[in-house]
Amino acid sequence: MWRDLAPLGRSSTSGGYFRQPFASAERECADWFAQEARARGLRLEHDGFGNMVAWWEAAPGSAGEGGDVLTGSHLDSVLDGGAFDGPLGVVSAFAALDLMRERGFAPARRIGIGAFVEEEGSRFGLACLGSRLAVGATSLQQAEALTDRDGVRLGDAWAEAGVDPSQGSDLLAGVGCFVELHVEQGRDLIDRDAAVGVASEIWPHGRYRFDFTGEANHAGTTRMEDRRDPMLTYAMAALAANEQARLAGERATFGRISVEPNGTNAVPSRVTAWLDARCATDDSLGRLVEAITAQAADRAGEHGTGLEVTPESVSAAVGFDADLARSIAAPHGWPVIPTQAGHDAGILSAAGIPTAMLFVRNPTGISHAPDEHAETVDCLAGVEALADTLQELAG
Amino acid sequence: MWRDLAPLGRSSTSGGYFRQPFASAERECADWFAQEARARGLRLEHDGFGNMVAWWEAAPGSAGEGGDVLTGSHLDSVLDGGAFDGPLGVVSAFAALDLMRERGFAPARRIGIGAFVEEEGSRFGLACLGSRLAVGATSLQQAEALTDRDGVRLGDAWAEAGVDPSQGSDLLAGVGCFVELHVEQGRDLIDRDAAVGVASEIWPHGRYRFDFTGEANHAGTTRMEDRRDPMLTYAMAALAANEQARLAGERATFGRISVEPNGTNAVPSRVTAWLDARCATDDSLGRLVEAITAQAADRAGEHGTGLEVTPESVSAAVGFDADLARSIAAPHGWPVIPTQAGHDAGILSAAGIPTAMLFVRNPTGISHAPDEHAETVDCLAGVEALADTLQELAG
Repeated sequence: MWRDLAPLGRSSTSGGYFRQPFASAERECADWFAQEARARGLRLEHDGFGNMVAWWEAAPGSAGEGGDVLTGSHLDSVLDGGAFDGPLGVVSAFAALDLMRERGFAPARRIGIGAFVEEEGSRFGLACLGSRLAVGATSLQQAEALTDRDGVRLGDAWAEAGVDPSQGSDLLAGVGCFVELHVEQGRDLIDRDAAVGVASEIWPHGRYRFDFTGEANHAGTTRMEDRRDPMLTYAMAALAANEQARLAGERATFGRISVEPNGTNAVPSRVTAWLDARCATDDSLGRLVEAITAQAADRAGEHGTGLEVTPESVSAAVGFDADLARSIAAPHGWPVIPTQAGHDAGILSAAGIPTAMLFVRNPTGISHAPDEHAETVDCLAGVEALADTLQELAG
Repeated sequence: MWRDLAPLGRSSTSGGYFRQPFASAERECADWFAQEARARGLRLEHDGFGNMVAWWEAAPGSAGEGGDVLTGSHLDSVLDGGAFDGPLGVVSAFAALDLMRERGFAPARRIGIGAFVEEEGSRFGLACLGSRLAVGATSLQQAEALTDRDGVRLGDAWAEAGVDPSQGSDLLAGVGCFVELHVEQGRDLIDRDAAVGVASEIWPHGRYRFDFTGEANHAGTTRMEDRRDPMLTYAMAALAANEQARLAGERATFGRISVEPNGTNAVPSRVTAWLDARCATDDSLGRLVEAITAQAADRAGEHGTGLEVTPESVSAAVGFDADLARSIAAPHGWPVIPTQAGHDAGILSAAGIPTAMLFVRNPTGISHAPDEHAETVDCLAGVEALADTLQELAG
């Protein structure tokens, strides 16, 4: 399966992946998913937002009590992302299914392997877009208004991909629990010397657009003291965000920026930058963003520039089902750890579906970048852990 | 003439102009130029780089001693630039010619109205590209290797525009002096309460590419202390550049930036930013860039990031012909002032052609931006000043 996925959307220069939702590479990944489902005799179901589930029906005569057991993850990537973030959960789900069948397991509950679209928010800016739509956390109306960097509306991207949003989604209607396997995105499992871990919670996190406005002017003839340069206010805000988060053990990142007119010899008229912020509690997230905004606004006052801050998406803390996490982790002695990354699992959990996450160790600690990695031996441990968990739940 | 030029390449949202060389709007400006030349019975001459001169032949029997008198400016703009930077010099040249003919003046020396391509360097990164090529300050080999932001090579842009660089340029072969009229890009003429001024010199200036490299990673899961984030090093460099230049009365601007992968939830792997720096002397320019580089490198060491600085173009100080400036300014009492902006006049002057510049007052002091302006009464004073100067030179 990795051999088939490896070339799809891979940059020949960086080795990273570009799999934006409804663009060609991600559509090829979706085709691959359909093929894998077909090869295993699974029934493929699409919803009206681009999400998919491949169903392994329960054994005839089983009661199916507790509803469907869903696993899977996503196939899209950030810009220049790694191979594992997303696909590892999908590949491991198919492999776990193969393993369960080898073991002669017949599920008493239907097992689904899902792939949610635009988990990264790398094209339309809203992370976990597919799962948000599937659970109704984002409305169709809100979603249709989203545009990508080239101004393409999500509605048009759907139409081009043959996706019909008027169909809505009932993929999750019968789902009784969700288990998502994911490559670890930090260094906890390295520190704990474990191949596999179980998630306790997801930190609250959000994306905030900072629009700094000033006055375009000639970079040569305009005296420094006559300028209203939004780049300087941005630079102060980026440094302030870093310092605030570092001192508090939180996260604050300005990784995306857009400058107008972005000419070497022009003082910019506008700098738009996106803050990604994450904290252990909803309150501390609010305080962090407030502190960064206050420092930036203060500088804007000194620089004669303007500042407007718009939250684009804010996700509250998600505590995963504690009993489920304990029951999965305890028999194997796997560590139970928090994560600072958002996941579809967080969306489903917040929507009331008992949810668990399994992490597979990442020896680089790096993710959202070409160097993201997982050793085969750890991936196989992950497949076994997922198969054990699904058998326990669907047995 | 302004009515014809007004709509070409104008943004309906900002009101600014986008006239990048060899793109459609700028080509329309070139067609307009050819039309104006034809309407006045001028002979239009092109060179192999996209530069043009419209010639008004000397009166029959005149000796033409001292060579051709060239005026004009450029038609391209920065991204989202103003209406006057460039076109004012060309429009005023045609208007001055009309005025001289009305006055019954018959030139003893041939008078040319020129339009040099890519004066702003907004597409291929090298300012005054057309005039540099025409005087041989940049070689054809250097120029052909230039690419725009989309990776289009200058050679291909030339071919598409029907320009054949193997023709070279002999537009300047017989030119004895050059007078460029330009909208003022600062506030000197406002402070001096003068509609027209004459340039004494152009400050030395340069463009330097700063490549900050780090390690792409997940913006949520990567602890602040585990990062190597080039955005922070860039932010420090931008603030340091501003402070250095402000304290010394010089200019330093980071107005253009490119980030990889430029995703909200990814620590960047690379930030490329362009420094525009200008000082009163060549030595002080060298010291300014050295000081900014040293501060940025210092921070790069602290941040675990890399820094490489590449000068993309550096223009030495240009002192215009002092006698010529005095002879133009003295009879009218026009102020003689320095400028911090680069111009084709600087390239021709450095190539040994006696050169002068006339400035027309800009009531906003703003340029390279939609708010750039010149009042009609000041523009008419500029036309008269240019006609007087050309008559004096070509009489």
